[in-house]
Amino acid sequence: MPVEGAIADLSPVLGDKLTTAAAAREQHAHNEAHFPRALPDAVAFPESTADVAAIVRACNLHRCPVVAFGAGTSLEGQHLATSGGISLDMSRMARVLEIRAEDMVAVAQPGCTREGLNEALRDSGLFFSVDPGANASLGGMAGTRASGTTAVRYGTMRENVLALEAVMADGTVIRTGTAARKSAAGYDLTHLLIGSEGTLWIITELTLRLHGLPEAVSAATCRFETVEDAVNAVILTIQSGIPVVRIELVDEMMARGFNLHAGADLPEKPHLFLEFHGSPATVAEQAAAFGAIAAEFGATGFRWTDRADECRALWRMRHDAHYAISRLNPVKRTLATDVCVPISRLAEAVTTAQAESRRLGLITAILGHVGDGNFHCGLRFDPDDAAERARVEEFAATLAKTALSLGGTITGEHGIGLGKIGYMQAQHGHALAWMQAIKAAFDPNGILNPGKMLPTPGH
Amino acid sequence: MPVEGAIADLSPVLGDKLTTAAAAREQHAHNEAHFPRALPDAVAFPESTADVAAIVRACNLHRCPVVAFGAGTSLEGQHLATSGGISLDMSRMARVLEIRAEDMVAVAQPGCTREGLNEALRDSGLFFSVDPGANASLGGMAGTRASGTTAVRYGTMRENVLALEAVMADGTVIRTGTAARKSAAGYDLTHLLIGSEGTLWIITELTLRLHGLPEAVSAATCRFETVEDAVNAVILTIQSGIPVVRIELVDEMMARGFNLHAGADLPEKPHLFLEFHGSPATVAEQAAAFGAIAAEFGATGFRWTDRADECRALWRMRHDAHYAISRLNPVKRTLATDVCVPISRLAEAVTTAQAESRRLGLITAILGHVGDGNFHCGLRFDPDDAAERARVEEFAATLAKTALSLGGTITGEHGIGLGKIGYMQAQHGHALAWMQAIKAAFDPNGILNPGKMLPTPGH
Repeated sequence: MPVEGAIADLSPVLGDKLTTAAAAREQHAHNEAHFPRALPDAVAFPESTADVAAIVRACNLHRCPVVAFGAGTSLEGQHLATSGGISLDMSRMARVLEIRAEDMVAVAQPGCTREGLNEALRDSGLFFSVDPGANASLGGMAGTRASGTTAVRYGTMRENVLALEAVMADGTVIRTGTAARKSAAGYDLTHLLIGSEGTLWIITELTLRLHGLPEAVSAATCRFETVEDAVNAVILTIQSGIPVVRIELVDEMMARGFNLHAGADLPEKPHLFLEFHGSPATVAEQAAAFGAIAAEFGATGFRWTDRADECRALWRMRHDAHYAISRLNPVKRTLATDVCVPISRLAEAVTTAQAESRRLGLITAILGHVGDGNFHCGLRFDPDDAAERARVEEFAATLAKTALSLGGTITGEHGIGLGKIGYMQAQHGHALAWMQAIKAAFDPNGILNPGKMLPTPGH
Repeated sequence: MPVEGAIADLSPVLGDKLTTAAAAREQHAHNEAHFPRALPDAVAFPESTADVAAIVRACNLHRCPVVAFGAGTSLEGQHLATSGGISLDMSRMARVLEIRAEDMVAVAQPGCTREGLNEALRDSGLFFSVDPGANASLGGMAGTRASGTTAVRYGTMRENVLALEAVMADGTVIRTGTAARKSAAGYDLTHLLIGSEGTLWIITELTLRLHGLPEAVSAATCRFETVEDAVNAVILTIQSGIPVVRIELVDEMMARGFNLHAGADLPEKPHLFLEFHGSPATVAEQAAAFGAIAAEFGATGFRWTDRADECRALWRMRHDAHYAISRLNPVKRTLATDVCVPISRLAEAVTTAQAESRRLGLITAILGHVGDGNFHCGLRFDPDDAAERARVEEFAATLAKTALSLGGTITGEHGIGLGKIGYMQAQHGHALAWMQAIKAAFDPNGILNPGKMLPTPGH
């Protein structure tokens, strides 16, 4: 057995940093989405880049799968050891190594979470902007090219990772990028690494861009009669160049979820939630400019606040959407879709999703980072009800195909993992073969997160 | 001869789109930098992606080098056919194919120049932001990961290319990315393509991000007693989050060059040139905030304008810096360095450059996109004077090593080409081998721009 060879090699080196105990394996088998549990054969807890290199080198020698595990919050099963092997738990590599305030850069280990980094940045006047709903690990966020609510202004992980250290399949340690803002030196391995879901290399250190805390922050909410009206207000806001930091769509069903989960009192109508950053004068100017656009599309119930506690409460509620959705039907599980389309096609994509949900008789909450054209449908279903499961899967497939037909992408931020492998050929056409060529060149033995992202060549 | 085989295959297909006439070959042998002329064996003028695919396929079959040629303005010799073969002149693929104003996206062919695209965007309310000094082709700009004066606000080609069509070494046509703002679907081939300098594939179509023309534009200039003062004002401006669109350093010698070339009346002191975009109120607020910071560092001669003609004249002068530098010593040639460092190290890098120039007795003008930590030294020298040439090369080497020692990069925007291959190992260490692995997987016969960017493995 490959895994036994790797464990035999590594046990003397790693000691109690490697375990085959059932409890640890069980802890690493779960996911927050709808995928079946998947038990690794062993769990390793590296404490340094050298530990990671030793583990990967041994796994490569013995052809043993190795799957990076951050916070376990990925939504397409990226962290599941579906082929067995070693789950590489990065929780002991969670330090913030350096804060370079002058350069607006932080250096952190991959097990550090986004909230952990922001905690370390307290009192620095700086913050790290990328905010998926979960308190994900920074390594996992880079691996899945995560984004979140502020990407429309501050970018996704793609724009906020400047440099990386990583371990290659043969155990070599490389560094990509620098703390300089830009570079034209050679192939962009940093961006090849971001979004590769642990299939090409294991991230061991990240150099991240930070942003200055704004002088003033304000938030606004308003509601619309229809989702088309809300989306059209978003399109015009973006085209007008109003530098919104957040502009989030919440549909009728999602509003109900927030009312149930967070005790909100939202009318069950489509809403937009917004945030503005700047000086006191500019945030007021931005809010007024948005208000005028929203009014053109019949918005009502416009609420505006610059109180920090009210802003925080609004975004805490938004970030807990995954749990709010579960309140719509507590006995079931959630499938979260994730498509992104050119913004001119956003209304069409959202209304297609709503119509399809009605046709299939599903409970679907829609929310999204609509300034980027990205939205999610949260579907509650019973995984043991084959017919219901089939309807949910039909919905997800229709939505992915709709995104492709509108010139968009099958995933804006959740990644491919297990859930979307089946659409990779349709998304990429001939380009898929070149992704497979990179995989073959970088991981010839196929040990790095096997079975994820890329369909097997020829299938 | 490989090239003869390729020409024999292609002549019946391409007709007069392929030529071996001396005049055409001569036209494609030159460069604006200091590299010796390099004659291709033939020049092809493809008119479609299918033409490009046919040419590359034939070159691959016959092991004939093929080198993309846009506007011929690259500064590290990227477009020179130093191994002979076919120069692939993209000037007949220069159309703007689509302007999608709602999505703030344009689709263009690679031979279209940045000014050509902006001309096509006139009356759309949108503009394409990336502006290297020359009127470069969009394909060349993507190939070298170009940036320019507005990158500090709007990003480089890395941030402004959403999707690409490209021809692979075997003639396959692929598409990467979509017109959606973001995607988490698979390896980021788009970013691998950007900055690959024609060594992995040939770009045949670009989908580009556009930005809304601001309501108000203003420009400002001021001068400082020392370069350190100017640079420290830049650092504080960036840290303060003032969203400058341009913040350009001009040293004493560069000021003299502008006076000679553009009839300016700049005191021969270090200057900053700035631009602000926003509403009338916000550009005034930004200019005032910058003015207060500059005053802390002893700035004088603060001039401010919101007149469009004055702003245009200022940036036209700045974009002609390459020609202004040539006025400092008309009988000689120019070597342009290009390093980028973390902004906290910028003053140290610039003063090191000035001291080294003095030590070597060189005429050096310094200018830079200092908001990104990126600056250039323009050195005038006589290529036939071996001793002077050696001093210039010593200067360039010292500057590259200084950038590396300060945690920066050997090139911020000009790329590697011929000029910086020698520093690739020092820049990338173990990562270089993985770049070479990608090259080997994508271009096994080494036909795509051979001899550029990557040192031969094992050398």
